Amino acid sequence: MERAFGFDEVAIVPGRETVDPDEVDISGNLAGIKLQIPFLASAMDGVVDPKFAILLGKLGGLAVLNLEGIYTRYENYEEILNEIIASRPEEVTPLLQKIYKEPIKEKLVKKVIEEIKKENVICAVSSTPQKAEELGKIAVESGCDLFFLQITVLTGKHHSKKKTLDLKKFTKNMKIPVIMGNCVTYEVALDLMELGASGILVGIGPGAACTTRGVLGIGVPQVTATLSCSKARDEFFKRRKKYIPIITDGGMTCGADICKAFASGADFVMFGNAFAKAKESPGKGYHWGMALPHPYLPRGTRIHVGISGSLEEILYGPAKTDDGTQNLIGALKLALSYCGARNIKEFHKKAKLIIAPGIKTEGKIYQKAQKVGMGK
Amino acid sequence: MERAFGFDEVAIVPGRETVDPDEVDISGNLAGIKLQIPFLASAMDGVVDPKFAILLGKLGGLAVLNLEGIYTRYENYEEILNEIIASRPEEVTPLLQKIYKEPIKEKLVKKVIEEIKKENVICAVSSTPQKAEELGKIAVESGCDLFFLQITVLTGKHHSKKKTLDLKKFTKNMKIPVIMGNCVTYEVALDLMELGASGILVGIGPGAACTTRGVLGIGVPQVTATLSCSKARDEFFKRRKKYIPIITDGGMTCGADICKAFASGADFVMFGNAFAKAKESPGKGYHWGMALPHPYLPRGTRIHVGISGSLEEILYGPAKTDDGTQNLIGALKLALSYCGARNIKEFHKKAKLIIAPGIKTEGKIYQKAQKVGMGK
Amino acid sequence: MERAFGFDEVAIVPGRETVDPDEVDISGNLAGIKLQIPFLASAMDGVVDPKFAILLGKLGGLAVLNLEGIYTRYENYEEILNEIIASRPEEVTPLLQKIYKEPIKEKLVKKVIEEIKKENVICAVSSTPQKAEELGKIAVESGCDLFFLQITVLTGKHHSKKKTLDLKKFTKNMKIPVIMGNCVTYEVALDLMELGASGILVGIGPGAACTTRGVLGIGVPQVTATLSCSKARDEFFKRRKKYIPIITDGGMTCGADICKAFASGADFVMFGNAFAKAKESPGKGYHWGMALPHPYLPRGTRIHVGISGSLEEILYGPAKTDDGTQNLIGALKLALSYCGARNIKEFHKKAKLIIAPGIKTEGKIYQKAQKVGMGK
Amino acid sequence: MERAFGFDEVAIVPGRETVDPDEVDISGNLAGIKLQIPFLASAMDGVVDPKFAILLGKLGGLAVLNLEGIYTRYENYEEILNEIIASRPEEVTPLLQKIYKEPIKEKLVKKVIEEIKKENVICAVSSTPQKAEELGKIAVESGCDLFFLQITVLTGKHHSKKKTLDLKKFTKNMKIPVIMGNCVTYEVALDLMELGASGILVGIGPGAACTTRGVLGIGVPQVTATLSCSKARDEFFKRRKKYIPIITDGGMTCGADICKAFASGADFVMFGNAFAKAKESPGKGYHWGMALPHPYLPRGTRIHVGISGSLEEILYGPAKTDDGTQNLIGALKLALSYCGARNIKEFHKKAKLIIAPGIKTEGKIYQKAQKVGMGK
Repeated sequence: MERAFGFDEVAIVPGRETVDPDEVDISGNLAGIKLQIPFLASAMDGVVDPKFAILLGKLGGLAVLNLEGIYTRYENYEEILNEIIASRPEEVTPLLQKIYKEPIKEKLVKKVIEEIKKENVICAVSSTPQKAEELGKIAVESGCDLFFLQITVLTGKHHSKKKTLDLKKFTKNMKIPVIMGNCVTYEVALDLMELGASGILVGIGPGAACTTRGVLGIGVPQVTATLSCSKARDEFFKRRKKYIPIITDGGMTCGADICKAFASGADFVMFGNAFAKAKESPGKGYHWGMALPHPYLPRGTRIHVGISGSLEEILYGPAKTDDGTQNLIGALKLALSYCGARNIKEFHKKAKLIIAPGIKTEGKIYQKAQKVGMGK
Repeated sequence: MERAFGFDEVAIVPGRETVDPDEVDISGNLAGIKLQIPFLASAMDGVVDPKFAILLGKLGGLAVLNLEGIYTRYENYEEILNEIIASRPEEVTPLLQKIYKEPIKEKLVKKVIEEIKKENVICAVSSTPQKAEELGKIAVESGCDLFFLQITVLTGKHHSKKKTLDLKKFTKNMKIPVIMGNCVTYEVALDLMELGASGILVGIGPGAACTTRGVLGIGVPQVTATLSCSKARDEFFKRRKKYIPIITDGGMTCGADICKAFASGADFVMFGNAFAKAKESPGKGYHWGMALPHPYLPRGTRIHVGISGSLEEILYGPAKTDDGTQNLIGALKLALSYCGARNIKEFHKKAKLIIAPGIKTEGKIYQKAQKVGMGK
Repeated sequence: MERAFGFDEVAIVPGRETVDPDEVDISGNLAGIKLQIPFLASAMDGVVDPKFAILLGKLGGLAVLNLEGIYTRYENYEEILNEIIASRPEEVTPLLQKIYKEPIKEKLVKKVIEEIKKENVICAVSSTPQKAEELGKIAVESGCDLFFLQITVLTGKHHSKKKTLDLKKFTKNMKIPVIMGNCVTYEVALDLMELGASGILVGIGPGAACTTRGVLGIGVPQVTATLSCSKARDEFFKRRKKYIPIITDGGMTCGADICKAFASGADFVMFGNAFAKAKESPGKGYHWGMALPHPYLPRGTRIHVGISGSLEEILYGPAKTDDGTQNLIGALKLALSYCGARNIKEFHKKAKLIIAPGIKTEGKIYQKAQKVGMGK
Repeated sequence: MERAFGFDEVAIVPGRETVDPDEVDISGNLAGIKLQIPFLASAMDGVVDPKFAILLGKLGGLAVLNLEGIYTRYENYEEILNEIIASRPEEVTPLLQKIYKEPIKEKLVKKVIEEIKKENVICAVSSTPQKAEELGKIAVESGCDLFFLQITVLTGKHHSKKKTLDLKKFTKNMKIPVIMGNCVTYEVALDLMELGASGILVGIGPGAACTTRGVLGIGVPQVTATLSCSKARDEFFKRRKKYIPIITDGGMTCGADICKAFASGADFVMFGNAFAKAKESPGKGYHWGMALPHPYLPRGTRIHVGISGSLEEILYGPAKTDDGTQNLIGALKLALSYCGARNIKEFHKKAKLIIAPGIKTEGKIYQKAQKVGMGK
């Protein structure tokens, strides 16, 4: 049995040289589209609505809108959001199950995409394979820029007597780039690249503890998963001369985790929780997992994360808290600068990870840290 | 010293291909008897009474009735159960010690077996080696299908000046298959197979913490124990062309643990706790260990686990909780499907385990998981 | 750096054969003296007074009386004990510091030894090297059987401008066997044997957390320490044909730890805490460390452990609790029987340890265990 | 990936011989200056003011005064201190940010240095590279003895379009020795020595959890960092015949950690927290990190550590607590004596570390330790 590592178990060794953080460039290229900041917001209804997508786009990042969420099921989605937020804990699960039974409307799919595009920001949407052909067609027609084909576990080959999506044909026919996931191994990442993926989402059962790992026992911690899929990216580049970026998705709880994802080989990171704390997020401090309406194993519930500041503060600071959840861009730039890296690709080469377990209880570690000395 | 692993320390790597969970078959063959679901209920008085055995049998699983428990000592066992449940914490231990002093009655042994058989379900009973000849004879005569010869630590050779059970002779004389255990090593599993076991119970001191490990320091974590005994099964199959199934018994607290037991090589799993939470279990939310009347080291007490739902919900869902204790069949099928396995034997071949420690505090991990991202 | 292991990190693998626990013999030979049970009570004032020494001796074990404690400083030691027990927490440390300043009286040393010998039990006393010549002489004259020369860290060579004890000369001149310690390494154990030790006390900074480890960072976990010193014993036996027993001292909190100490090679174990809970111990549920009057680094305070039962119950059961602190003899016999060992020396050969970390929170693990399944 | 170790994960093996602690010499030579005790107080405003620097100097240690702190910004710094101490938690961060905006005054820099020198103690001051030329000049002119060039991450080469400090030129021109840091790797330590450092500060993201590690993911646990930088010191000594001492800075919470730092190769240790608890420290039980006014990632807040005793008690005891935070000198001497080392350099050679993880919750471990046995 091989040993796999999560964020909490590793640390980044500072480099032999340093770079002025003002001269660090963290921008990235996702399927031909330049993003000023390499952060993607997860396609979760409590995190990304059209307004949030516009705002994050203007700030340099990219939000992915879930085409199977409430925004394409309800014209009056704000009412629905309020209903979810206002419901008592014991009512949430049945309420959400009921809400997600409402059919998706083509008209609303078009509307939300056009709403985003009107503001001249990149528009990215997500769909599961089941709905991909139907929703992909509408997305392209409506002017969408990027299509995220996303499911808990995606592989290059799904065996079923039912009609299933032909990934190769789908990516060939789609007029816009298709980002695919999630996966965690070298083999699957390589398979998906060969099938036409323009980006790979990495993360199944991320972190030490998560629903997929808790309920199914399935998962690979994110440092190991990102390292594996990065190797597939580099191998694919050698074979086909195409650089397919790796997007580490989920399991990050603070700036340190984000920096470690990039040190492990990520080109981009995707997260929901940190964005859910922004005062502009639609959930108003609440969010809920998309595994809830899972056909086989419905699970998850509404989570209260609270509001910690504006999206701009979360991204660009100044941090009002010292728990690593604000000024994420400042943190990433400083991490690069401490490793002597001028950009993410240099960081991939220069950042050296060591195994250095730390007991991390959200918030607590910082307190303990500050008791120790200079806050170094 | 070799490193041994428990459920909390490993994870299952998703496969290169996936299978439609609707096309996954989790049935198994236990000593010639086909079980639709590979779950056995432990021979504990708070979990299995004749009615529960009938119900689980009809739902596709198998409950083992303890022939040395209250059901064969008392005609009016419901009164006894009520007395146990109603007693105050400080009264439980002496009360249970008194209750289990009542002699076992042949008439009642016959009665409970016939009660189960009358409903046309598989009838399985358990006994310790001390009582096996006496109880085995009655069990066979009463129409029982499977005999579980079970004690904390069973080996192929027990040294004693007292008369002890000759395992080889016993299995040869018994007209029904004898499942034996518990053991945890390759050598003992192989010895028991050579002595005629039709199935092997695996689990001594399961999990990171348990009475046997806490009081005696003896035990092997279940992933390592199951891997070792599976190798014995495969070796025995090579030698004798007989496939003796491995039943991982104990130490599983949620769906993830069950999936990991199968990934480690288990053909079946046996547990008590998850079944004790069924509203149809005789303990009505309470159960108690069979180590309590142990001749050398009486230990254990009554545990309150509460009732979480019907047996059907626990097995087939839909899950009303997200802690991995409901819809256990859905979880197992999905785990197989994510590894591209159509059945348990394919899962044995395809499931790859990695070492990936997780801090697991019952219930807590799911909350943390959902704070992280998409519930992936 | 080598990896060292403590009790919590290992488990004992059950054997290929088992033995009837009724036929297990746990007696041992300590410097020519046969002990029915291989348990020694630590030379702590809250644990061992003359009456306790007599009682434990009659029950088959051996208590070591501290010749530098209150029993040799005060005629009216019961009053002193009461004063310690009755004092408020903030008063304890200064009170104890004052109490241990009273000079040791030769008359009282004789008196306590004679009191024990009068009851026809083995009498063992302890002293630090500083007082050894003076107290050793009186002890021998008073009829004492065994002399424990004990200090936190003892080596074969102590460099000092002051006059120091010549261990070789001391053991040669003493008419009774001298047990020496504490040590934790192969080299030092061997050195002490060459200097005439009749037994070796093993334990410096035992367990994951202890004062010596917390304050000084010095210590070796007990499994590794016991394994190392046992190798020295075996090597010494090969060289000199003398079998010098190993006494694992400290760091054991329950039956499992005791069993693991023997599995690691211990011939005897010594502990204070479990005995302090006996209703016959002089501290009446309290005890306090002998490091308190340490010349360089006075430390420690009074600890309240409570009274859990009689000494007989702690040793022979039946256990009224399930936390592994009662029926320690039953636990040890059962552990041997599960490994197919008829006595401690066979256990040394047959017991196989594996690395199997367990999170152990006193008392808690048993509860968790019992929730899991059959109490196996 | 290599495994790195922190203080909590290792222990010191006691030696084959012991030395009388009265004959242990812990003095050290820092850039030609003899210090009776090898402890440095961190350049934090809540810890070191001129009075504290004088007191620690007279007691044999060395305090470093931060030339960019309040003492060089405000004439009336006592008022400012009182304002910080008296402010409510939610006011602290903005208040501190405001306070540290006040310009540094040359007059005050001179004044504080002269105040210390007047008392005939060694005067050490610190500055970041940005201010080093300006402040270094004044420091030398004012009679300062040692200059600490300190920043979170210092390397031999900083890339920036802005004017940056030329380390080689700076050390050459400075008339007093320059201690540099912080760093954690062999390469950087060696680079800094080649650039003229007279001492190396070791510690980035020390301990399992700290702000730099929590926010940026960057850091190396202190045992590994100290071992690495010590090797650089030894290599540099071989090359250039100059012995550049290693100062382990941060991450130590008790005597055990300090002893382990020396066992890992440290010549000196630097800490703030333990000194902040002295009744003579300016923060009166409070302290705050110097990362707070960080240009890129301001972080940290005011911490309340309380007052545990006088500086003399913290250093020389007697300890009134048993948590390893008092009598630090007694602890270090005893650790050396238990390893048979007469001084720090012998300790480097004789102290052997083992990997022996311990769960350390401040204060708690001692309680647990004392419950176990003799306080050994």
